[in-house]
Amino acid sequence: MTSSIKAFAPGNISCIFKIHEDQNPEKMGSLGLGFTVNKGVIVEVAFSDKNEILLNNKNIDFPTVKNVVNKLAPKQNIKIKIDSELPLGSGFGISGASALATAYALNKLLNLNLENLQLAKIAHVAEVENRTGLGDVVNQYYGGFFLREVPSSEFKVEKILLDDITMYCKYFSELSTKEVISNEKMKQSINESASEALQEINKLEKNSITFSDLITISKKFAQKSGLLMDEKVISTIKEIEKNGGHASMIMLGNAVFSDIPFNESLEIRLANIPTKLL
Amino acid sequence: MTSSIKAFAPGNISCIFKIHEDQNPEKMGSLGLGFTVNKGVIVEVAFSDKNEILLNNKNIDFPTVKNVVNKLAPKQNIKIKIDSELPLGSGFGISGASALATAYALNKLLNLNLENLQLAKIAHVAEVENRTGLGDVVNQYYGGFFLREVPSSEFKVEKILLDDITMYCKYFSELSTKEVISNEKMKQSINESASEALQEINKLEKNSITFSDLITISKKFAQKSGLLMDEKVISTIKEIEKNGGHASMIMLGNAVFSDIPFNESLEIRLANIPTKLL
Repeated sequence: MTSSIKAFAPGNISCIFKIHEDQNPEKMGSLGLGFTVNKGVIVEVAFSDKNEILLNNKNIDFPTVKNVVNKLAPKQNIKIKIDSELPLGSGFGISGASALATAYALNKLLNLNLENLQLAKIAHVAEVENRTGLGDVVNQYYGGFFLREVPSSEFKVEKILLDDITMYCKYFSELSTKEVISNEKMKQSINESASEALQEINKLEKNSITFSDLITISKKFAQKSGLLMDEKVISTIKEIEKNGGHASMIMLGNAVFSDIPFNESLEIRLANIPTKLL
Repeated sequence: MTSSIKAFAPGNISCIFKIHEDQNPEKMGSLGLGFTVNKGVIVEVAFSDKNEILLNNKNIDFPTVKNVVNKLAPKQNIKIKIDSELPLGSGFGISGASALATAYALNKLLNLNLENLQLAKIAHVAEVENRTGLGDVVNQYYGGFFLREVPSSEFKVEKILLDDITMYCKYFSELSTKEVISNEKMKQSINESASEALQEINKLEKNSITFSDLITISKKFAQKSGLLMDEKVISTIKEIEKNGGHASMIMLGNAVFSDIPFNESLEIRLANIPTKLL
């Protein structure tokens, strides 16, 4: 690469989500609860002789990222190099992070002079159109622990007053976001359970909210919605609770996050770092 | 073991199920579609100096089997040795097979002179009380490919005229039957989708039913119910269909069965073999 541009986007752990359907992908999104973390993706973009996308040095068909490239660089050949410390398809919002960091980097590479919010909206639409995520991009744009009481497509979030938290997570297997959010019955079940969970959060005293409160509500959502059914995820959460911790399922993956360390867990931190050029 | 008794019970692959709730575990069960296979469990029981259960030579806490032992041998110490070629918790009905073969073997060991149907009902109740299965035992008692249009607790099945079929399966990860069938929303979603599927089966000409027809209907059930959400299961089914085969998800596990071989699949046969003493 002769001249390349790099951008970073944080991973996002979604704890609770409610699907907001709309025919218009610019208006579709989700409400819910989630937070960005100190690990994420670094995307490097450069002109090339062909269009290609690499994830951790392997060629990959990545429709969500391709969607962003097609919109921002329809006429150029671009090489997109994504480095991710977190796995794709496991609830860490890596598709959203990749789309967003790609948009930031392409904007600079091509001197498009678009505002960050415009880039974030393009990344959000790419996620929605490919059904890879509904609410990660808005969190990754701002960076932090957020409650979304209006659809993510509006890019309005409410900050949760929690910072500098160490947590632990472990990934077991992938769930298909596309399959889940396209399923009418699951959607209904998820949305009813999410409404209850969001009401519970609203009953908490905002200034003294604790991480363990939010995990407890998130776990109830995971159970009631029917998304929590993987045996390994269930037994891991039980084990953590037996040891005095709190844990829930990462949305959407067969993965667990917890406030105490557990067997082979990865240490990760809540981080108020927005997506940015490097 | 000075004197021991052995029994065999076949594995059972459940394709479609509808939960029939009842406060009384003797009346709770499921409707649906499923078939027994040529692989299963061999259970060996013998008097011992302590109660213990081994699965493939490892001590295991196996409440469903313990339930059967408590009912049939409340006063004796019994060693239960289960050998299974198929994994537990993956949709092959291994908990039901273990409970049923244990019941047959204990009946002989203790000279209880209970009828096979009584033993099967005890195994069925053990499954229901532990929420490890709802419809495997009835199939394993008779052996074969069956449609159940009344709850499994009634032990009335309708034979599907298919025999001598080779199929292929692969297991990825465990789902919690207990979590799924205890969840109100999932139950509703499963039951609505199962009713539609059973109606579709009833529209087929019974004498010319094909395995591929039944797989296609089963897959629709898996999708609509929301149970099919594991990325590996979804991509495996897609790959099989691309190669001209038919495939669906084994209920309840993140596992696939197919009418054509696929990557690292296990060959297995539909087998009309009932549970029996060896």
